[in-house]
Amino acid sequence: MRMVDIIRKKREGNPLNDEEINFFVEGYTDGRIPDYQASALLMAICLNGMDDRETASLTLAMAASGDSLDLSAIAGCKVDKHSTGGVGDKTTLVVAPIVSACGVPVAKMSGRGLGHTGGTIDKLRSIPGYRVDLSEQEFIEQVSRIDIGLIGSSKNLAPADKRIYALRDATSTVESIPLIASSIMSKKLCSGCDAILLDVKVGSGAFMKTLPEAQKLAETMVSIGKHAGKKTVALLTDMDAPLGLAVGNSLELKEAIEVLRGGGDEALTSLCLELSAWMLFLAGQGYLEPCRAMAQKALKSGAALQKFRRLIEAQGGDPRVIEAPSLLPGASHRREIKAQKDGYFAQMDAQSCGIAASILGAGRERKEDAIDYGAGIWFQRKIGDLLQKGDVIAVFYTSVPEKFKEAEDVFRNGLKIAKTPPQKRPMILGAAK
Amino acid sequence: MRMVDIIRKKREGNPLNDEEINFFVEGYTDGRIPDYQASALLMAICLNGMDDRETASLTLAMAASGDSLDLSAIAGCKVDKHSTGGVGDKTTLVVAPIVSACGVPVAKMSGRGLGHTGGTIDKLRSIPGYRVDLSEQEFIEQVSRIDIGLIGSSKNLAPADKRIYALRDATSTVESIPLIASSIMSKKLCSGCDAILLDVKVGSGAFMKTLPEAQKLAETMVSIGKHAGKKTVALLTDMDAPLGLAVGNSLELKEAIEVLRGGGDEALTSLCLELSAWMLFLAGQGYLEPCRAMAQKALKSGAALQKFRRLIEAQGGDPRVIEAPSLLPGASHRREIKAQKDGYFAQMDAQSCGIAASILGAGRERKEDAIDYGAGIWFQRKIGDLLQKGDVIAVFYTSVPEKFKEAEDVFRNGLKIAKTPPQKRPMILGAAK
Repeated sequence: MRMVDIIRKKREGNPLNDEEINFFVEGYTDGRIPDYQASALLMAICLNGMDDRETASLTLAMAASGDSLDLSAIAGCKVDKHSTGGVGDKTTLVVAPIVSACGVPVAKMSGRGLGHTGGTIDKLRSIPGYRVDLSEQEFIEQVSRIDIGLIGSSKNLAPADKRIYALRDATSTVESIPLIASSIMSKKLCSGCDAILLDVKVGSGAFMKTLPEAQKLAETMVSIGKHAGKKTVALLTDMDAPLGLAVGNSLELKEAIEVLRGGGDEALTSLCLELSAWMLFLAGQGYLEPCRAMAQKALKSGAALQKFRRLIEAQGGDPRVIEAPSLLPGASHRREIKAQKDGYFAQMDAQSCGIAASILGAGRERKEDAIDYGAGIWFQRKIGDLLQKGDVIAVFYTSVPEKFKEAEDVFRNGLKIAKTPPQKRPMILGAAK
Repeated sequence: MRMVDIIRKKREGNPLNDEEINFFVEGYTDGRIPDYQASALLMAICLNGMDDRETASLTLAMAASGDSLDLSAIAGCKVDKHSTGGVGDKTTLVVAPIVSACGVPVAKMSGRGLGHTGGTIDKLRSIPGYRVDLSEQEFIEQVSRIDIGLIGSSKNLAPADKRIYALRDATSTVESIPLIASSIMSKKLCSGCDAILLDVKVGSGAFMKTLPEAQKLAETMVSIGKHAGKKTVALLTDMDAPLGLAVGNSLELKEAIEVLRGGGDEALTSLCLELSAWMLFLAGQGYLEPCRAMAQKALKSGAALQKFRRLIEAQGGDPRVIEAPSLLPGASHRREIKAQKDGYFAQMDAQSCGIAASILGAGRERKEDAIDYGAGIWFQRKIGDLLQKGDVIAVFYTSVPEKFKEAEDVFRNGLKIAKTPPQKRPMILGAAK
């Protein structure tokens, strides 16, 4: 088998068979196939596509390229949850305790975030003492004992994806549904889970800007999950404006605690409950409607909050942050951002908010960059509110006050205050099952 | 400017501007742009195409990437001729002396052949003593004195093309009209000529298998020539069966001499006359019809043969080969290939003939391979002939008789003897001006 023939086949628009896909993934991972041949194939895939069978085959080959987690020692159905990424997405911090409080084990390994804000693991690291680096054995023992564990990834999961992703980034071959879907799902298939819930974000702050492309990505990932023998459901959720009130690591943790305490933003709370209900459904806890009631009860009763406290304690963190969020890292400087005219709050572009938060220090551009855990944005007003000139829309936090100006400019560029109220957009835009 | 943005633009199907094309060609030639980015762009060009303006811009950038020949010291209009390559194509050896005998200077620098048989330079090297490596000064002085010079290329012409071609070969991005056209024309634009005659071969033995794709390539190359300010004409000529009777270096030289002596294959002779007439036309020698008459006269009168003798003498070769072809390298072994049944000679696949000749030793697969100058095939019968079982169709020549079996198998695979005579196909199939 020769790589040139595989490239030619895809260039001519023909489907690749499993042997050809394995030859590429194995050969590229171990260095026998050079970058320049891989990038030619990736471009041909971008332009000529892959069918569902090819995409599943590519995903399975990438998943098989490295380690995988074995969670079989933990009793029960393990459901993994994945968000395609958005601004202010702290749902895992709320959903994991709710699901666990319902008696379903949550054993989740997350990556560090790259981009506007940190990932779930960075948010958890803002809790003083919290260990994200449990050994596999510690992790499994903890989940078996208290039904919950949230750690960083230490294993060599899907190294083929790492190599391919880096090459795609350098060769403008990122935007391809089969390549995006296989990249996400290859890592999920190594996570040791029995079922997968996908939260596919749609809108200006998401990778998928429009509903049709998000729907296609969702369907492709669900198809991959089924090919791999795992129950998979995808929800399509709004990411035109940031999710909730906080963007930034300790700020988002604080907001998650507020939601778990029964307060917090309504839209965020309802999304967290819906995601929890689907996870419970996938774990075999019954029809969706009773699962919704279970999730609601776990939140309302305070059981989920107590579960989160147990998680923090178990992983070495200071549980007092739950009652005293001021123990979380703060920022030395704050600035209020005010409305410059009267009108309805019509738009708050999620991407602009994300970039502004990143400028303030909440995100990292490169893996080795440090994060300012206290930096970020807290919104005081939401889309649809009637504003008066001078009303405080948001508060910026940073340790580097010189950054305020640049961040504010970016943030304001994404704002729109209008004479008429904006159309209300639902949080859940669709699903793929 | 960033290469990723250029790749993205072409991936999205948009035309690249001149600055972007120059950035790619210069950056890739000097090594700043890595292979993996170049191959992604090449695949995007293969699949999304380039318009005439882009293709011309790419060609000019490639032509400007290295040396170029300055023929301005030679008086008159210099016309270059290029064949896209076929099996048994020895037309340059006939056409150059005819045109020169008409008083139009021919200063031609040719590459060594890669593929089934050698290039023009390899055919000339089969003449004992013939020097293909004149210095630029010697070359210009010779053409100024005797109106003809045929040498090998020593300069660093279009190094961007060399790099890009090697990468295309390794990444299945060869078959693209803009990339093929720019590769050919970039070298022609460095050759110092004032006008260009292109012989675009069509058929089984050519790069372009069908007339429509050959027509498209011809039109693209003519458009490039015009963009570069050079009069350019392309003829589309048949390459389903080998051209003439000989395939192999000294065999083809021998056949060229036969044609110059007024004998030889009729179809080959008529093609050589037509190409000569177009070169004279492009050199400003009048309308096409009088140019045809001029070419005919130069051949019939023996002036072209005498010009060929002067060329050989001037470049240090033994001119006695003209009267005594036995002075050319021969082969120690010969085998007659006979018809295995009665019928009309319906097909003799050019590609099979080329591969068979290469197996006998006439071609090289890699640049460093040696050529057996005496090896090759001489056809005794032509397409359309009525054959009887046992008739000798062709004679094989080689220094390695062990190769006869393999070469014969390949050759016979391309033969067809049928009950009805084949349709006659004209030699000239079209033109682009």
